[in-house]
Amino acid sequence: MAPTEDDIASQPLDARVIRTRNDILRTAIDVLTDEGLDAVTHHHLAEVAGYSRATIYKHWPTRNALLVDAYTYRPSGEHHVPTGDLRADLIAELTMFRLGMERQRLDRALAALATLTTSVPELAGIRDKLVAEGERVLLQLLTPVAQGAELEAAMRMLSGSVSHSALMHGQLPSDEVIAAVVDLILRSLTV
Amino acid sequence: MAPTEDDIASQPLDARVIRTRNDILRTAIDVLTDEGLDAVTHHHLAEVAGYSRATIYKHWPTRNALLVDAYTYRPSGEHHVPTGDLRADLIAELTMFRLGMERQRLDRALAALATLTTSVPELAGIRDKLVAEGERVLLQLLTPVAQGAELEAAMRMLSGSVSHSALMHGQLPSDEVIAAVVDLILRSLTV
Repeated sequence: MAPTEDDIASQPLDARVIRTRNDILRTAIDVLTDEGLDAVTHHHLAEVAGYSRATIYKHWPTRNALLVDAYTYRPSGEHHVPTGDLRADLIAELTMFRLGMERQRLDRALAALATLTTSVPELAGIRDKLVAEGERVLLQLLTPVAQGAELEAAMRMLSGSVSHSALMHGQLPSDEVIAAVVDLILRSLTV
Repeated sequence: MAPTEDDIASQPLDARVIRTRNDILRTAIDVLTDEGLDAVTHHHLAEVAGYSRATIYKHWPTRNALLVDAYTYRPSGEHHVPTGDLRADLIAELTMFRLGMERQRLDRALAALATLTTSVPELAGIRDKLVAEGERVLLQLLTPVAQGAELEAAMRMLSGSVSHSALMHGQLPSDEVIAAVVDLILRSLTV
């Protein structure tokens, strides 16, 4: 029996095609974080990734489609594995967030994502998933000690202390500032 | 005596020239916040502002030069005038920050600015001035009650609670969350 359209559609992508797509998406994120958002063009990615422009256009007819995939398949940041010591766990998790800013230039990837949601509304859903995954461990740590508006406030203050420093001040918080952030929250929640 | 070059350079700009420049810079910020960063081009600004492309190129030979001036001359957000009630003053100031996000789309202007500093390093100094002016009243309010790393932490947590919500979650904090943010800080600082 000849394969139906459904059979063909469900066949796995050729391994070479997957590798090509991944190469180009990884290059897109690298170019975005190293050179800025304006540098993410089919033309420039073809040069940097070493594929023809035609190949890139075949996979992503528009720059926005390429950006959506680049953010969708971007590996997410690493997390601290909680040990049960709330203060140490919160400090370690914020320190991991800072490390992502430093090593993977998460600050630039996030700033560009925040900017792009103005012109590419479908990126808002991808941003929400990335942020939820990024804040997963913080939420798990805080849920037993805060709730409602206080939980939301504490979450925004913890994440915001790192993201606001990086995006708005162009500098990462020191170890001392991260510890002070955690102590300000915990002293208040455990009064 | 004929005017020297210095005399000419120090002459005030013609009022019409000033108006033209201001029109175009205001349009650049409007286009950036309404349509996104990619829409800020000489071509599109000429259409929207109703000037010739040649005029825009004459004032700003490059898009980056135009963006630098647009951010430099952007009116800064409004502040709350402190009354002496620290809790009420902090809540009012964060509420003014939220209002700027809502009314003037400060969230989009700030996200674009954070993104642009990757490719236009001279914007970092302008960002620093804008952020310092934006945080001036918060700093004035907190300086009597915190210092050192704790002051820096509290500043980042207060501003970050609004900027992180807006840029990373695409939503502004509710009145209840702003009050919870302020109470979490004050309860801890006044223990």
